[in-house]
Amino acid sequence: MNRRDFIKTIGLACAGLTIPAHRRLVANTGGVSEQRRPNFIVIFCDDLGYGDLGCFGHPTIRTPHLDRMATEGQKWTSFYVGASVCTPSRAALLTGRLPIRSGMCSSVRRVLFPDSAGGLPQSEITIARALKPQDYATACVGKWHLGHLPQYLPTRHGFDSYFGIPYSNDMDRVAGEGRQAFWDPKIEYWNVPLMRDEEIIERPADQNTITKRYADEAVRFIEQKRNEPFFLYLAHSLPHVPLFTSDEFRDTSRRGLYGDVIEEIDAGVGRILDTLRKHNLDENTFVVFTSDNGPWLPFNEHGGSAGLLREGKGCTYEGGMRVPTVCWWPGRIKPGVVLDMGATMDLYTTILKLAGAEVPSDRVVDGLDLQPALFGTGPSPRNTMFYYRGTELYAVRKGPYKAHFVTRSAYGSDKPVKHDPPVLYHLEHDPSEKNDVAKNHPDVIAEIIKEVERHRATLIPVEDQLAKRIPKG
Amino acid sequence: MNRRDFIKTIGLACAGLTIPAHRRLVANTGGVSEQRRPNFIVIFCDDLGYGDLGCFGHPTIRTPHLDRMATEGQKWTSFYVGASVCTPSRAALLTGRLPIRSGMCSSVRRVLFPDSAGGLPQSEITIARALKPQDYATACVGKWHLGHLPQYLPTRHGFDSYFGIPYSNDMDRVAGEGRQAFWDPKIEYWNVPLMRDEEIIERPADQNTITKRYADEAVRFIEQKRNEPFFLYLAHSLPHVPLFTSDEFRDTSRRGLYGDVIEEIDAGVGRILDTLRKHNLDENTFVVFTSDNGPWLPFNEHGGSAGLLREGKGCTYEGGMRVPTVCWWPGRIKPGVVLDMGATMDLYTTILKLAGAEVPSDRVVDGLDLQPALFGTGPSPRNTMFYYRGTELYAVRKGPYKAHFVTRSAYGSDKPVKHDPPVLYHLEHDPSEKNDVAKNHPDVIAEIIKEVERHRATLIPVEDQLAKRIPKG
Repeated sequence: MNRRDFIKTIGLACAGLTIPAHRRLVANTGGVSEQRRPNFIVIFCDDLGYGDLGCFGHPTIRTPHLDRMATEGQKWTSFYVGASVCTPSRAALLTGRLPIRSGMCSSVRRVLFPDSAGGLPQSEITIARALKPQDYATACVGKWHLGHLPQYLPTRHGFDSYFGIPYSNDMDRVAGEGRQAFWDPKIEYWNVPLMRDEEIIERPADQNTITKRYADEAVRFIEQKRNEPFFLYLAHSLPHVPLFTSDEFRDTSRRGLYGDVIEEIDAGVGRILDTLRKHNLDENTFVVFTSDNGPWLPFNEHGGSAGLLREGKGCTYEGGMRVPTVCWWPGRIKPGVVLDMGATMDLYTTILKLAGAEVPSDRVVDGLDLQPALFGTGPSPRNTMFYYRGTELYAVRKGPYKAHFVTRSAYGSDKPVKHDPPVLYHLEHDPSEKNDVAKNHPDVIAEIIKEVERHRATLIPVEDQLAKRIPKG
Repeated sequence: MNRRDFIKTIGLACAGLTIPAHRRLVANTGGVSEQRRPNFIVIFCDDLGYGDLGCFGHPTIRTPHLDRMATEGQKWTSFYVGASVCTPSRAALLTGRLPIRSGMCSSVRRVLFPDSAGGLPQSEITIARALKPQDYATACVGKWHLGHLPQYLPTRHGFDSYFGIPYSNDMDRVAGEGRQAFWDPKIEYWNVPLMRDEEIIERPADQNTITKRYADEAVRFIEQKRNEPFFLYLAHSLPHVPLFTSDEFRDTSRRGLYGDVIEEIDAGVGRILDTLRKHNLDENTFVVFTSDNGPWLPFNEHGGSAGLLREGKGCTYEGGMRVPTVCWWPGRIKPGVVLDMGATMDLYTTILKLAGAEVPSDRVVDGLDLQPALFGTGPSPRNTMFYYRGTELYAVRKGPYKAHFVTRSAYGSDKPVKHDPPVLYHLEHDPSEKNDVAKNHPDVIAEIIKEVERHRATLIPVEDQLAKRIPKG
């Protein structure tokens, strides 16, 4: 129990009240009031592009449940992830910190692999762990990718339970020919384990049914925990290639297999929101839907679309790190479109504040509290975004301006290109990053360089978790 | 009075009924029933790109009225224009025919200019003229661009009234330096006339207030004609460059001047829909919002965005000819997203059918009746789209496949490139036209070539209206 909560409980005891844990007093933007602690659901897709939802402009992928969720809630159009690839992006969301602070990015490897010996250090405090003192039930469903050795699993990081795959669905490849294996994927080509808590329960995981089973698991968790506050982290392992979908959705979308996959995820979102409504939890649950990074463009039609944004997964252009985001909380969130900046790291801080949990004060937390923008009382506090590639800072956004100090295409053999002065884009006027306006704005560049200096002063060297490998033999 | 209407009127007379003209029997998909003839409003923007509305995915242009209109009505994601530039596109909308049939396209000039002597021939039957026998009040507000000599004006083509500019807002340039004139536009740089019916009432037109004045005019027309059936064609002259906006909207959007212009247009849409609601006309008025072609990309931030589509105005890639389209008719149109194809030419046929007017049978009409898709009773009848550049057929879409027989970038000095076999894209899987699948689908190409032959057999040589010039001196 943290200090503030202790004082609150004492206060209640003095008043002779007995209130169940999940109905304790909670501080929120509207002041302290008696209300049930809110539930939190974060739905995190894998490689879903900025342009892949109906409400973000895709012409042939139908996402009626997400479109409705956006209409009832908020569509965030400048929402960022902490890195353009899986592992560091997930670390950023769950710790509220840039991966450079936790060692979850590297100059050697971009993500964790099955032979990796590293993972999210115990010194990091995930959303789940931070919520435990507040009596939250916590579940991780889906892809983890923050370390698959026992000491790194979700159950060691504050989650009561885990059901999912420990790394990407294209790892542990054991059969199939080159790229052809992706164009006509079979479950048996990838020896991916499916885990329940700390045990492997299925191998290879039946990826055809995995999206549906994740949704089933999510619904079951909500129903089981409906009388206590809960945090559900549902990290879909798709639409990362290889693409799989259940029989019900196969060949049903206009966008081919990729569309089938997204439409199955959308249907799951519908089931989850319906479950909340059915149990009258909708007005007490903050739901966020987003993605871990941009679309994996080299996979052509098996990859998604970044819409009007430049490039995709793996790079520091907008298409790599700006993700389609929808927030929902009927009766609390002010419906509309939010053009202000936000980031997955901000979900950390926002959720902890809403729960009355303590945001760690012994370390730098990059997340900011988005409540003003969510509840319509003010702008988003986020005004800056740092775009890292591995351990190197490539670009910085400050207000509408983004300076690229280094650019490099997402994949391929090209070397990084340094820019001095940096390439400068006005992202609000030019979201596709086409018109370099550096020569007109030396003042903006000077400001951003100062921002970089301030940022660099906060960095402390940490152990590189992605470079560690399991010894062979 | 057409034959069918004559019979209906006789029938009513025999039954001893007296019914005002606008409440005559009307045939619709649900059979013949007594109801008021519906009103029609077509809002047509100039150079608005596929990606420029909030509901089509733009991150920093706010279009709350159009977003709401889309939620209450239908968002059409595969809706086409008849040409990728102004004059022929407008001819296609108003005549329901490809411009190659009316002479409103040319191999010499792409659009009409102030020195042009041609225009829409009297032999063409516009929507307005076709509706007159059904006692519709008709108004044209905004840009015409189908001939500015008296014999070609809206008032000679079935419109009771006209208020607007006769050609593009960047014509009749009299001052300003090169491209700089566009980056910092002044009204006096362009000597564009503003007309009322057949008289010039202001020159140069005050383009700063023009968008607002068009909306004022539209609202006034609706209020004046609220007790009779009406057709309003509101063709905004913006966001074609040079960009202008009224004081109320200047510097208010996140997207700069271009965003200010779109947000002012959106506000006008809101005023129009509110006027319909106020007079209880909403459930009897079919409103369509769309654009004449894709964004004018060489104008950088003063041009729009085609979103995830390839290229923009002036070419036969999707960005040139697919436009953001919203249909609205509360209580009649089935709300949702329509992925089926539609085209502005189809509005011709659909509107005429809804009004009980006769679709001309003495000529080829390319428009199809979209009622099944609008009212949720079946798919769109459109399965084919022809992409012309001037008088040459460059590409054909049939179902999800599009074959490019010729490609050429929108502007610039490159020559047309012929393709044999054609480049083939699956637009539903690959809306950005990136992956040529021609070698896998010779059968599809053979089908499309047959479609081209059938189409060519319907063409009759006509006089080129765009090549004609006013003799000098």
